[in-house]
Parts: sequence; C-alpha cells; structure tokens
Amino acid sequence: MSTEQTFYPGLDGVIASKTDISFLDVENEEIVIRGFDLIELSKKVTYLDLVYLLMNNQLPNREERDSLDQELRKEYWIPKELSSILKLLPNQTDSMDALRTGISILAGFESELDDISIEANRRKTIRLLAKVPSIVANSYHAKMNSPMISPRNDLSYSANFLYMITGKEPTQLEMKAFDQTLMVYSEHEMPNSTFTARVIASTTSDMYGALTGSVASLKGKLHGGANEAVMEMLLEAKTEEGMEMLIMQKLQNKERIMGFGHRVYMKKMDPRANLMKEALLELVETKGNKELYDMCVIGEEVMKREKGLYPNLDYYAAPVYYLLGIPINLYTPIFLAARTIGICAHVIEQHANNRLYRPRVDYTGPRNLHP
Amino acid sequence: MSTEQTFYPGLDGVIASKTDISFLDVENEEIVIRGFDLIELSKKVTYLDLVYLLMNNQLPNREERDSLDQELRKEYWIPKELSSILKLLPNQTDSMDALRTGISILAGFESELDDISIEANRRKTIRLLAKVPSIVANSYHAKMNSPMISPRNDLSYSANFLYMITGKEPTQLEMKAFDQTLMVYSEHEMPNSTFTARVIASTTSDMYGALTGSVASLKGKLHGGANEAVMEMLLEAKTEEGMEMLIMQKLQNKERIMGFGHRVYMKKMDPRANLMKEALLELVETKGNKELYDMCVIGEEVMKREKGLYPNLDYYAAPVYYLLGIPINLYTPIFLAARTIGICAHVIEQHANNRLYRPRVDYTGPRNLHP
Repeated sequence: MSTEQTFYPGLDGVIASKTDISFLDVENEEIVIRGFDLIELSKKVTYLDLVYLLMNNQLPNREERDSLDQELRKEYWIPKELSSILKLLPNQTDSMDALRTGISILAGFESELDDISIEANRRKTIRLLAKVPSIVANSYHAKMNSPMISPRNDLSYSANFLYMITGKEPTQLEMKAFDQTLMVYSEHEMPNSTFTARVIASTTSDMYGALTGSVASLKGKLHGGANEAVMEMLLEAKTEEGMEMLIMQKLQNKERIMGFGHRVYMKKMDPRANLMKEALLELVETKGNKELYDMCVIGEEVMKREKGLYPNLDYYAAPVYYLLGIPINLYTPIFLAARTIGICAHVIEQHANNRLYRPRVDYTGPRNLHP
Repeated sequence: MSTEQTFYPGLDGVIASKTDISFLDVENEEIVIRGFDLIELSKKVTYLDLVYLLMNNQLPNREERDSLDQELRKEYWIPKELSSILKLLPNQTDSMDALRTGISILAGFESELDDISIEANRRKTIRLLAKVPSIVANSYHAKMNSPMISPRNDLSYSANFLYMITGKEPTQLEMKAFDQTLMVYSEHEMPNSTFTARVIASTTSDMYGALTGSVASLKGKLHGGANEAVMEMLLEAKTEEGMEMLIMQKLQNKERIMGFGHRVYMKKMDPRANLMKEALLELVETKGNKELYDMCVIGEEVMKREKGLYPNLDYYAAPVYYLLGIPINLYTPIFLAARTIGICAHVIEQHANNRLYRPRVDYTGPRNLHP
C-alpha cells in the first residue's frame, strides 16, 4: 500500500467536495445556505423561495416565485401505473422503502432521464419535488388500505402536501408550521444521504437513481430515522415525570436517546431545533396539548444535565408533526421530501463539475492462500 | 474551516475502510479475495465456492458447497406481486432501473429486514443472491412483452440464471463461460457501487437499501455501464478494419473509448480481462464468429499503440455475453447480479463494525447575505 494513503474512519475530517450550496459554520452556529442564514430564511421567506434559491443560486422576485409555483402545481400528479403499484406493495412495507420504490419507478416515466445538463437537471428537480409528496402520502394510504388522495392544484405546495396526508385542508397556522419544517429540513451540507447522492451521481448516473440511494440512506436509525424514534419515546413517556423517568432508565441501560447531539454540532444546540421549539409552542398555544411541549422541555433539561447533550432538529420537529396530525411513520419520508431540493441541488453541482468517487481500502485479511 | 481538513477530489488516495474482503494489489497485479488470487480462483473453483468464500471467509468443503447450492435453489422464486409490478413498469424503463425497483420492492417481503446481525445478514445475502437473477431476466421479458420464465430448481445457479435469460438450457461450455464471468465480476475492493453500499449501510440502514443504492451507482457510464457501450462499439465496427477506423475516429473526436483503462490499474492490463480473452477464444473456437475475437484484438492493439491504455474486464466480458446470446442491455444488470455477493459481504462487514460516513465540504459560495 502506498504510504501517501491515510485511513479516515467514517471520513471524519475529510473534505469530499467543494460546494457553493451550504456549509455548517459550527463556530458561529450558522447554517449557511447559498450565503444566507437558514434560520433567518426560515423566519422571513417560504419553502418555495428556498427551493428557488437552492436551485438557482438567488432568491426569486415575485414573478419568478409565481412561475415556480405554477410549474410545480402542473406536476403534482403521479402516473396511474405508479398508484397501482403502490397498492400492490405488501402492507408491511416500510414507508421509506415504499418511497424509495416510488422514486425508482418514476424514473421510467422521465423523458430527460439521461440528460445530465444543468438545464435538464433543473427541470427534473421540479418534477421530482412536485411528485414526491404524492408518493409519500399515497404510499401510506395504500399501506393502510385507505383510498388514495389526489393532489389539489388549487392549493400551494405545502398546503397540498399536508392535505394529501391528512385529507383535510390545513389552517393558515398549520400550513405555516409545516412549511417551516420543510425549510429547516431542506438542506444541511453533506450528511450521509446527500453524500450518497453525490457518490452515485459521480458515475454520471441520473438524478432519480441518486435520490433513490438517498432514501435508502436517510432510512437508517443513525440518520433520518431519528424523528420517528423521538415521537415514540414521547408517546411512551406520557407525562413530564414519565419523560424524566424514561430517559434516566434508558441512560442507565446505555440505550441511545434519539434526537440529541449531532456528529458536526457535537456539544451545541442545533439552531434549527430552537426554531422548531418556537413553532411547537405556537401550535400548542392554539391547538392545546401544552403537556407535550412541557415534556419536550423536561427531556431537553435532563439530557443537558446528565449528558451535556443538546436537542437536534428531529427532537422538536417530531412533536410538531404529531400536532399537525401526521402519522408517525411518515416523519422520515417527509424529511426526505423536504430534503429533495437540497439533494437535487447537490446532484446538479456534482454533474456540472464531476469527479468519480473511488476511495481505497486498508486490507487487513490474509495473503498468499491457494485453492 | 478547521485547518486539519483536506480536500480529496473523488476521495483519491483516501482509505475509506479497513477490510478483510479484498484488495487490488496493483504492484503485483493481483486481485486479492480473502487471501486468494481472484484469477487463480476463477480457473480452479466455481462461482458458488466464491460466494461461500466471500460470505464465510473460507472456501467450502463439498458438503458446505452442496448445502449452499440447496439453500439457493429453494429461493430462486420471486413473489407473484413483484412479477405483476415488473409488467406494470413502462417499457422504456432502463434495465438497471427495473432491477433497482425490483430489489427495492423485495425488501417489503423480507421478514428479517431490520436485523443487521451477521447471521441475519448472511441469510438475507442468500435470498438476495437467489432472487436477483430472476428479477434481471424477468424484468427484461416484461419490458419486451414476452412471457416470464420461471426459475428451474433442477438447474445449478449459473445454468438457471442463463436459462432464465435465454429460455434455453445452456451447454456445459456456455455454463462454464457464464459462471466464470460471474466470478470475475464478483468482487473488486471499493469501486463506487460498493462504496455507495457501505455509505448507506453505515446509517444502519438495511442490506436491501444498500444494494438498491449500488444498482443506481453501477448504472453510470463511468462505472458498470461500460460493458454495454463496448458491445455497441463492436457491433458498429463490424470488421477488423472497421474497428481500427472507428477507434481512430473516436480518438480524433476526443470521445471516450469504453472498456479501456481503470482508475486503479491505470497503465496495466486488468488481469480479469486476460481471463475473459481466453474464455472468448474458447467460445469462438466452438461456436464460430472468430471475427469478433479478432476485432477485439485489433481494438486492444490500437489503444495500446495510440493511448498506451489496456483493456479492462468490460472489454472482453461484453463479447462473451454476446456469444452466450444475452441481450446487450442485460450486461450491466448481470454485472450487478454477480457483484451482489461482494456488495453484501461489504454490508455485512460494515454493519459488524460500523462508523457513520459523514465527510465535510469546502464551502466556496458567498457569506453574510440577508433576505
């Protein structure tokens, strides 16, 4: 083995790509998105503005925003063959696996699949963004043997997404809270799922394949699966006292507590978690269930006291989704739907300036054996 | 950004994992598989022995080999819902995309999906290995609106695989050649598709998801897609003179010639290509079409003379598949089927000693913008 090669477990400390898209500035506690602070954006603009920014490298004016809105509404639908297939999947299929299958199938309906130019990739991004919510919602309805819910072109992106999940037109407050969750989940530098997409795209494989790989990655318990685990814990705990007891018990059993800490932030609070904490407070003040908010606060305090760990985004996004009436096993698929724009932006960037990812290994097995 | 971090374009020179599975020893021109030389193995044992070796870290005795053979035969079948879905995919679906969809769907039928212990992962490996050939063959028949071909449990793994593709029971020579292609494609250290699987598996996501991501990666023209491009070139060239002219013309137009060179081997001949060259000669001597062999040799000479590049495995595997009567757009899916054992072995190893892959980026965009 050449002495120039170094082993980086988990690629910790390795820069895998130059990017103009985003950066976790841990020192200044800022998530930089194309030069903007994600938290400031999430307070001042909407998910569609963020989509435009990630795709086109600038915020849209009103006309550009309306145009994107119209393009998306035209593409909310999914092919009827795909709906039929979602019904044929066995009911025990995991929601993330159904979403993975759905995106994989959608590739067969894409007329520009193998064109990896920036322009074609942007058009595919819009189609994917528009259709993923329908796959998320309707794969769930199929799994529950419930009727499919067709998208409503008279509703905005976030309102239609939430409507297709719950079957009810959301209130202004619900839509705003949901839209904000999509914003905070939209992009986050180079997590495993985004890295997966860039690795796949680097073979010049297409955007649908790259996103399919990302779904597989985000499903993992060490990645996107955390938001569902948080909600299960809150439901198990039931009360503030129950929450403290449950966490203490899990810590004693050396179980992993989901929703705390982050490979990059380490010992600081995820700035997105603060924003979701505010959104949660606003929701419980209107819809009731203040107990849920108080349980979360107790959990936060216990983990700070016992482990010096702070909540990450998943910890406060989970109860927000719960109050919006979203079934728990859609939390991670919604995370993927929101992140689709970030992943597609990375695929566009990878294809525009490509180098095949091909690391090496440190071989630790035997040598010179003969059959 | 911390000064400790370094940018490695394409992760060139980065060791991404320790492994006991395989190693490309470029200096000694040896592909080491669990201590054995892949070329020696491919001459002396069968694909099933190699499967056993990759999965269990030792070659099987006769009893162990027979037991694996029986376990595989029991699992050749695929669920009828999956067959129905393959027929519902639009005919323009790429064969690799159909395979990706098929493996993704299969996850919903797997009773041990979330158990990532070594034992459960080995059992899933056997089921995947047994079923992938049926998806490869029957997604093609569905695409061509031809009748599906059920697996035949009275046939060995390689014979059944080739039978399901062509509809004809292969001769001994055909089966031996096909089995050898599966061996040389079985495992190759850390190419992009294997790396993709390890990255996905590192979130503790399951083996089916990891393999789904690998299919997306292997589809890319800079990776598995090369074997199909080689055959297209041979068919376009038609004669020895045509081959020289076509390559010279492509070189003049600065087009990439597929089937030559390799990121790791660089200026040396891929040892697997030599073995396939011998297999090709044996096939043309029995089945005729010596012209095809001679065209390949001319192509090899021209590329050595003009660019100093040597053929890789894909260059000589493509005409072997052609002579076995395999449709060109199944070459890459067969590569994936053969590599399934290698990828699964890496997933088993990753899950057994896991660290989440999470690299960083070098942010080159603007800062301090405000909406």
